[in-house]
Amino acid sequence: MSSLFGPIFGESAIADATSDRALLRALCDAEAALAEACAHVGLIESHQAAAVAKACAELAAMDPAELGLEAVAGGNPVIPLARRLQSAVPQAHFGATSQDILDTALMLISRDALALVVTDLRAIETAVASLADAHRSTPMIGRTLLQQAIPTTFGALAAIWGMSFVRVIEGLSLELPAQVGGAAGTMAGWHPHGFEVRARYAENLGLVDPGYVWHTDRTPVTQLAGALGSAAAAIAKVATDIVLLSQSEIAEVSEQAPGGSSAMPHKQNPIAAITARASAAQAPGLVATLLAAGSPELQRGAGPWHAEWPALVSLLRATGGAANRLRTSIEGLRVDPARMARALGPGFDLGHAVETVDRYLSRRTQ
Amino acid sequence: MSSLFGPIFGESAIADATSDRALLRALCDAEAALAEACAHVGLIESHQAAAVAKACAELAAMDPAELGLEAVAGGNPVIPLARRLQSAVPQAHFGATSQDILDTALMLISRDALALVVTDLRAIETAVASLADAHRSTPMIGRTLLQQAIPTTFGALAAIWGMSFVRVIEGLSLELPAQVGGAAGTMAGWHPHGFEVRARYAENLGLVDPGYVWHTDRTPVTQLAGALGSAAAAIAKVATDIVLLSQSEIAEVSEQAPGGSSAMPHKQNPIAAITARASAAQAPGLVATLLAAGSPELQRGAGPWHAEWPALVSLLRATGGAANRLRTSIEGLRVDPARMARALGPGFDLGHAVETVDRYLSRRTQ
Amino acid sequence: MSSLFGPIFGESAIADATSDRALLRALCDAEAALAEACAHVGLIESHQAAAVAKACAELAAMDPAELGLEAVAGGNPVIPLARRLQSAVPQAHFGATSQDILDTALMLISRDALALVVTDLRAIETAVASLADAHRSTPMIGRTLLQQAIPTTFGALAAIWGMSFVRVIEGLSLELPAQVGGAAGTMAGWHPHGFEVRARYAENLGLVDPGYVWHTDRTPVTQLAGALGSAAAAIAKVATDIVLLSQSEIAEVSEQAPGGSSAMPHKQNPIAAITARASAAQAPGLVATLLAAGSPELQRGAGPWHAEWPALVSLLRATGGAANRLRTSIEGLRVDPARMARALGPGFDLGHAVETVDRYLSRRTQ
Amino acid sequence: MSSLFGPIFGESAIADATSDRALLRALCDAEAALAEACAHVGLIESHQAAAVAKACAELAAMDPAELGLEAVAGGNPVIPLARRLQSAVPQAHFGATSQDILDTALMLISRDALALVVTDLRAIETAVASLADAHRSTPMIGRTLLQQAIPTTFGALAAIWGMSFVRVIEGLSLELPAQVGGAAGTMAGWHPHGFEVRARYAENLGLVDPGYVWHTDRTPVTQLAGALGSAAAAIAKVATDIVLLSQSEIAEVSEQAPGGSSAMPHKQNPIAAITARASAAQAPGLVATLLAAGSPELQRGAGPWHAEWPALVSLLRATGGAANRLRTSIEGLRVDPARMARALGPGFDLGHAVETVDRYLSRRTQ
Repeated sequence: MSSLFGPIFGESAIADATSDRALLRALCDAEAALAEACAHVGLIESHQAAAVAKACAELAAMDPAELGLEAVAGGNPVIPLARRLQSAVPQAHFGATSQDILDTALMLISRDALALVVTDLRAIETAVASLADAHRSTPMIGRTLLQQAIPTTFGALAAIWGMSFVRVIEGLSLELPAQVGGAAGTMAGWHPHGFEVRARYAENLGLVDPGYVWHTDRTPVTQLAGALGSAAAAIAKVATDIVLLSQSEIAEVSEQAPGGSSAMPHKQNPIAAITARASAAQAPGLVATLLAAGSPELQRGAGPWHAEWPALVSLLRATGGAANRLRTSIEGLRVDPARMARALGPGFDLGHAVETVDRYLSRRTQ
Repeated sequence: MSSLFGPIFGESAIADATSDRALLRALCDAEAALAEACAHVGLIESHQAAAVAKACAELAAMDPAELGLEAVAGGNPVIPLARRLQSAVPQAHFGATSQDILDTALMLISRDALALVVTDLRAIETAVASLADAHRSTPMIGRTLLQQAIPTTFGALAAIWGMSFVRVIEGLSLELPAQVGGAAGTMAGWHPHGFEVRARYAENLGLVDPGYVWHTDRTPVTQLAGALGSAAAAIAKVATDIVLLSQSEIAEVSEQAPGGSSAMPHKQNPIAAITARASAAQAPGLVATLLAAGSPELQRGAGPWHAEWPALVSLLRATGGAANRLRTSIEGLRVDPARMARALGPGFDLGHAVETVDRYLSRRTQ
Repeated sequence: MSSLFGPIFGESAIADATSDRALLRALCDAEAALAEACAHVGLIESHQAAAVAKACAELAAMDPAELGLEAVAGGNPVIPLARRLQSAVPQAHFGATSQDILDTALMLISRDALALVVTDLRAIETAVASLADAHRSTPMIGRTLLQQAIPTTFGALAAIWGMSFVRVIEGLSLELPAQVGGAAGTMAGWHPHGFEVRARYAENLGLVDPGYVWHTDRTPVTQLAGALGSAAAAIAKVATDIVLLSQSEIAEVSEQAPGGSSAMPHKQNPIAAITARASAAQAPGLVATLLAAGSPELQRGAGPWHAEWPALVSLLRATGGAANRLRTSIEGLRVDPARMARALGPGFDLGHAVETVDRYLSRRTQ
Repeated sequence: MSSLFGPIFGESAIADATSDRALLRALCDAEAALAEACAHVGLIESHQAAAVAKACAELAAMDPAELGLEAVAGGNPVIPLARRLQSAVPQAHFGATSQDILDTALMLISRDALALVVTDLRAIETAVASLADAHRSTPMIGRTLLQQAIPTTFGALAAIWGMSFVRVIEGLSLELPAQVGGAAGTMAGWHPHGFEVRARYAENLGLVDPGYVWHTDRTPVTQLAGALGSAAAAIAKVATDIVLLSQSEIAEVSEQAPGGSSAMPHKQNPIAAITARASAAQAPGLVATLLAAGSPELQRGAGPWHAEWPALVSLLRATGGAANRLRTSIEGLRVDPARMARALGPGFDLGHAVETVDRYLSRRTQ
């Protein structure tokens, strides 16, 4: 993460969850969980598993940059990590291939990052619901193709925002699988206990046992990418609306703490929404990268697999950062009904606008 | 569609389902369904709805190119279509805005296109299962990072292929919603019957009543895009494996009807897999386009909405075409166990490879 | 092309230049040019070349759809085309591989399409220059981050628009190469006259002799894609500004023939700019597709090459269509200085705004 | 940058050049250069400019993370930086807007990063030329669509590689402009010396004076993105070929220091090429992001501008990292003519393969 740009784009919390430190910890957690699972089925001794766990705890505190340099020769950080573990406890990394540990670690940090994303999305949706509730009958002009059309209510706009978050939150409730396959996906190193090892390993880590080896079926990654992409689009939509409604000429909403300018003290920029848009704008390209990487060759990709690592981390951060900035924007959003009234004629027909809000509010609390 | 390139990329069937003709028909179907729904709640007369239906049937046969030219002035084909309908039956297009009809029509052709995609994916998965069953114990060398690693079986490779299709087929079982919102999303034109109109309209068309107006919540489109992107990646993965295993130096599989060359009569190109890859390679960029279009402004997007139309049609065709070409490849795939044996040493440990196949086969038939 | 959507997105002219018919003609032109070049160096007889030319002229009139169906077996349309030619004149397609003809044909239609794109871009730039000239001193409020900032002039805004077109037009002045390589890029079939054949072939077609075989160096395609992507972004920028300045609340510019609505007769949508945005929005994803396809395997790509065909055609159309729609928008753009004045205070400092216009205008006429 | 993944993807050097530290230094350099330019034309005093330079030197050493946190409120790091400078020297940031400094700083780090990229690309091209020279007559089978076709030479393959680098290096020789526009692009704060200030500022920094304000003409960024995307594709092409020719079954080339495996000691993975592919695979999506961001609103983008920062940094790193890894691969590439001979029949026709190499070699030294 960039410590200079990250905070601007709301990435502070999610950058911790997806940091080199967090990834190193996840790699170590996976190795420890594997050792425990191997001991559980009798492939190694319990005291060996305990020794691995201890070594993992120590290695989790090492400098990730050091491991990064060691990782160049083999092209992934698990090779030097496993070497270090095995020099402490020869039974470490028992039966595993690098991809088992790395895929699992990426799912672990995805889980933690998703928890942050969803927390922010839920908070946004809650704030949106409050706005919808408070402004269910606040009339405003609807704008289609950015031209004034016919009246609606701010609540009805908020209700559509809310429904989009209901949908994308649901889309993010994905089962994240552990990875156990061994050198060529046959779980040969754990035979005849491979399936039990996988189940136990997954259980130890709080991940799902996928029931198969997904070394080269990347649907767990591509489906996660798709769900994050939809979430980012929903965030971008609401942020765009806030930016547009905050225009000087419209000024129907404003942020609680608008941003200033280095040149113009009077500026009231809806900067949280603006940076939410910018962060969300990273997502489509990153999703494309992950989809294009989704066809790794034969038993392990010669590049496509590796290509996922930075792209997935960046996508989690971009989506999480966007959610975080939008949360700031929406939780402090100020709605100006008087200003909205100025765009309206003397009488107006709100159609089902108010009921639309009621239905959204009742639906979300089911 | 290109009639010159389309067949190469397997688009023949799906191009019909997503053709200008099909879209025009879907637009007309939506108008007719709306008229019936309006009559159902008493907003218009039954005989008027019947007249609309008749006019729709006639308009569905007009030249789409003519409508396309008329559509330029307003920027969408529903404006001239509705004008034509209303000149025949003034009560046509009752209460609707263009986006109601166009979004619904895109969902109708998406439904029909998805049916074709899923049919081909199921056929692929069935063929893959047969291969896995027949070759559960056929040993082959596993290749990781495109280097020979340790043995597995061809069945185990096929089982992973199969699992990916199980997953992406499930991912494509999306609920496709009808769109009813009116000029600014308040359903004002149908008040107080808007909700009944929407329910009836959706029912008439066999689409889902979304329970809200998604004019500017594009999650139905972005989630569909994500699911298609994952499917395309799964297709590309298997196609890539077939291309790699068909290399002259490996030749462990071959297509039933490999392609020739304009210059080299001896060539045996796995052309169905090659063109499946090429068609699937269109998907990531198109998904990115649809995600980027997923943040339309306020009550109707001034460009983002319009941007969806060609991108969604292209994505359906690319994914469907890729599935179609892969089906041809996989249904005729020839596996050469003797050739596979040449890459193996005298003894080998298959680990859980065979059980992996059994688990996949038992899972898919549950 | 879609005849229903194409006109909306301004694709009518460019769709002809990139149609199946145009591509078939380009393929035939390439075959005829090759035959002439082979006769020129004595590899075949002149009367044979003349017979090829005659057969090409006839084949150029065949139904592209028929060739498309024949193309499935081999995965490209040159195989059946060459077969048909050779059945008429055995010396046709002398020494060539499919990719020689297809790459060349794509460059031919790219050339014709670029001519249309550049014509529209020049017309846009000319219209922009007139606006800049006329409004060099017309004050308007500058808007940064969509908030009112400090004054500028409409001419200064137009001058920046103009400079962007100067740059992207220059970027599109690419040398488009002919392709001559033969089966594996060694020009073996034309030995010892390969280099002369290539030079003559290129000259016959009005393309550049690249001096090497670019079967698998796709920089001619990726650089074209990049230039089109930059052009589309410049178009999208101006279209976005027009959409924003046309907002009901701002209304500082308007299109000459704004679009209506199926539901709201009073709407004045800047529909040419809106559809220009939508067409330009296809470009980033298509550029990504072409860049990702830019690493074909060894002597000819097994999928990446094929993936370029639909993506390049779509990118030419998207950029050309966007240019065409923006031209309509900008050539009829109405500027309302009185309305602009309303957003300004009593006195204002225009800085170098006026000189900025003068510099742009003097620069463009150099 | 990730210190864990960065080295794997070759980013070490380029990550320094594009680090938070480097960006902070570039921001400070821009502020100091501006102050000098303002003093040069007499807008501020020379001693004030000197004081700014001193303050800039001090601020360049501050913790970027601290500035990052301060940057959240206004949405960009120049606001707190300018505030700090102005508290030291009130004449600092004279006449400027944040975007002047930030755009310029991004061009400065782009320049430094491009120098690294081009150095690596030149080294690659030199190594490729040596390979072409040494193996101009080394016969190998050409492979089209990954099937054996007809013979060529390894030199001829290398010559195409080389030509691609000649082209993309040329494409990267872009003029990178300084940015000077002021609050709304009128250079009002420097009037009547704006043009001299810009020229001097650019000269101070070694950047080009663009002759206009490109706050919202992003062609300098989109054209840079396109050039980097083409370079990444060229890198990916060569890396892919090395991976394919290194396959166990082909083994015609090998890397000097292939990577091992955590599970299989015998593995000889061409890991430099593999990670070059992975790094280059990030580029298409990032280019798409930058192209989509290329249409910022009116006088300063409300999100699109901000979206460029992380995407451009990532694209520079991805391309530079890929070049760096490919350089390692290619400089140590081992070619096995005997192994190549095994795929060839008794006699072969190399056509113009050898001359192709000679022409490439003579062309590059012109």
